[in-house]
Amino acid sequence: MAVIDKKQIVFQEPLLLKSGIFLSPVTVAYETYGTLNPDRSNAVLITHAFTGDAHASSNGASGEKPGWWEEMIGSGKAFDTDKYFVICSNTLGSCKGTTGPSSVDSSTGKPFGLAFPVITIQDMVALEKRLIDHLGIRKLLCVAGGSMGGMQALVWPIMFPESVLSSIVIAACHRHSAQQIAFHEVGRQAVMADPEWMEGDYYGKAVPKRGLAIARMVGHITYMSEASMEQKFGRKLVEKDALGYSFAKDFEVEGYLQYRGMSFVDRFDANSYLYLTKAMDYFDLTDGDRKLSDVVSGVRADMLIISFTSDWLYPSYQSQSLVRALQANDVDVSYVEMKTDYGHDAFLVEFDDQTRVIKNYLVRVERERK
Amino acid sequence: MAVIDKKQIVFQEPLLLKSGIFLSPVTVAYETYGTLNPDRSNAVLITHAFTGDAHASSNGASGEKPGWWEEMIGSGKAFDTDKYFVICSNTLGSCKGTTGPSSVDSSTGKPFGLAFPVITIQDMVALEKRLIDHLGIRKLLCVAGGSMGGMQALVWPIMFPESVLSSIVIAACHRHSAQQIAFHEVGRQAVMADPEWMEGDYYGKAVPKRGLAIARMVGHITYMSEASMEQKFGRKLVEKDALGYSFAKDFEVEGYLQYRGMSFVDRFDANSYLYLTKAMDYFDLTDGDRKLSDVVSGVRADMLIISFTSDWLYPSYQSQSLVRALQANDVDVSYVEMKTDYGHDAFLVEFDDQTRVIKNYLVRVERERK
Repeated sequence: MAVIDKKQIVFQEPLLLKSGIFLSPVTVAYETYGTLNPDRSNAVLITHAFTGDAHASSNGASGEKPGWWEEMIGSGKAFDTDKYFVICSNTLGSCKGTTGPSSVDSSTGKPFGLAFPVITIQDMVALEKRLIDHLGIRKLLCVAGGSMGGMQALVWPIMFPESVLSSIVIAACHRHSAQQIAFHEVGRQAVMADPEWMEGDYYGKAVPKRGLAIARMVGHITYMSEASMEQKFGRKLVEKDALGYSFAKDFEVEGYLQYRGMSFVDRFDANSYLYLTKAMDYFDLTDGDRKLSDVVSGVRADMLIISFTSDWLYPSYQSQSLVRALQANDVDVSYVEMKTDYGHDAFLVEFDDQTRVIKNYLVRVERERK
Repeated sequence: MAVIDKKQIVFQEPLLLKSGIFLSPVTVAYETYGTLNPDRSNAVLITHAFTGDAHASSNGASGEKPGWWEEMIGSGKAFDTDKYFVICSNTLGSCKGTTGPSSVDSSTGKPFGLAFPVITIQDMVALEKRLIDHLGIRKLLCVAGGSMGGMQALVWPIMFPESVLSSIVIAACHRHSAQQIAFHEVGRQAVMADPEWMEGDYYGKAVPKRGLAIARMVGHITYMSEASMEQKFGRKLVEKDALGYSFAKDFEVEGYLQYRGMSFVDRFDANSYLYLTKAMDYFDLTDGDRKLSDVVSGVRADMLIISFTSDWLYPSYQSQSLVRALQANDVDVSYVEMKTDYGHDAFLVEFDDQTRVIKNYLVRVERERK
């Protein structure tokens, strides 16, 4: 039994995007953990958040670095690889092996840059469906993800009601709010204000480091809660025992943000930052004026919605309006609001609660299927 | 009776800053509204917020543009200029007539830039005290301000307990939190990342517009509440009836932030942005380890503390811990948490509630004095 399988697949058939544009070829990087059972009924798709990738877990393989949801995926864990065939692919528009703005445009032989089409959450899901088809899976046991991954997990049972038995939507929403758009727009403006961004045509030249670092700093503040920042940093000083009376960093929280910002630029593409934030900002299942309960009326999957008390970026009321719309359609929906100080980041750090809830939920889904 | 008096005064005597540095000469720009009574007992000092100035009100003078607290200061208003002699000065470190980093350093004949010393809220108050002394006022009837102005209003009765009868502290705190520091640090990094900032030595050359605009955009998000952004903008599109599938602005909230960012750079100095945010971040009345109730034990003034339910930047719990510390010292303290969706900006827009509370409060202060 393979502990971890890392693959890339190239789809030649053009992918029709929500914008009306066709994209081809499209490469998808993905990993799988565990074994697909003979009737192909134990597949779980994990959808990653904004800056994540296909490496969701090492699944205990020696020499592999931990995945971004290491504590949730593996033998005996919430997504138990002894029972489930777990798949995670890098999303469309990202920069970790799947086609995105840093990929080579076959029509020019150069990286796309801003010639890459603006994509949507629905386009990511359409590509994931293609991957699932390619793997010969007719129906996913579950699709699950947090934040941008939660948006994808929500779109799945709406776009492909016959192809997914259950969905776990964590710390997400059905429509980006003005404040969510606003924080993203600041990040985009910071990237685009960097002279080294050069209208997105920086590949092989410099990297718009400072702008991207600032965008990431803003992001990090929104991912934490006020309380968790206070607990972690408070007013602790860095490398000195008194205020410096200068503009060098004084406080640990400043050093932390600077560090997180600067280390991010080494692992993420600035244009992908633009494209993925835009995809989230465009996310509105109601298309502006439809009733959410109408939008989700075709859902056949069981749904589990999870939000976190201190998540002020994706506040619980967003999850709750989704729950109400699903209930209005008699969908089997469970909702858990987890108490935590970790803010939006909680889905990446609060494992005990999530494991307990998700493990039991998947057992119930399997039982009801039989 | 003069409706409005605009003046600048130059103090030659060096001002000892909290950093230990002496600053001289120091110019203060200030305005006064109303008439100082014969026993000089009706003076009210208004302390402005971060990007404010001495022009708090037109006081009904024709041809004068409205002040930043126009609705609160004037004949018959909360700070009634028929009764009170209202003073507002531009704070130390700002760029509206009072000495700051854009002022000429007399020792070099060039603008200070980063040679300007890092200042504190206490230094602002020390300079305000000098102005009050200059005006021949031994005891202020009241000092009042919101946000950074609230910090000054709080420092006054601690630094100069014999010089102020009452203080109104609005939407402020006694110590900047990790999150408050974090948002400011992002703004500073955005300014300093702009190549036109040139280590602060940009006067007479370019202006670090894009960096300062980004800093201001971040600020604006934190000044509003999630609810007020949703009410004001939601997902309304700008100048088009469909998503543009590009990185031009799609949403009104993006256009609003860009506009507020770019218009800000025409009226505010980037270095002042750095110095004033730093002053707020340094603000900690406990100096890291003192008990707040000990810090405020010398307060003799009556205190009115106001916070706003939706202000997540200066959340009510900060005001409440201040109230508790004052109560522990048997200070006459009133506390009002005003219900509003306007977030931190509420002190600049919610006039009915503030007027009612402040007007009555000042009447009570006067009555008790007699």
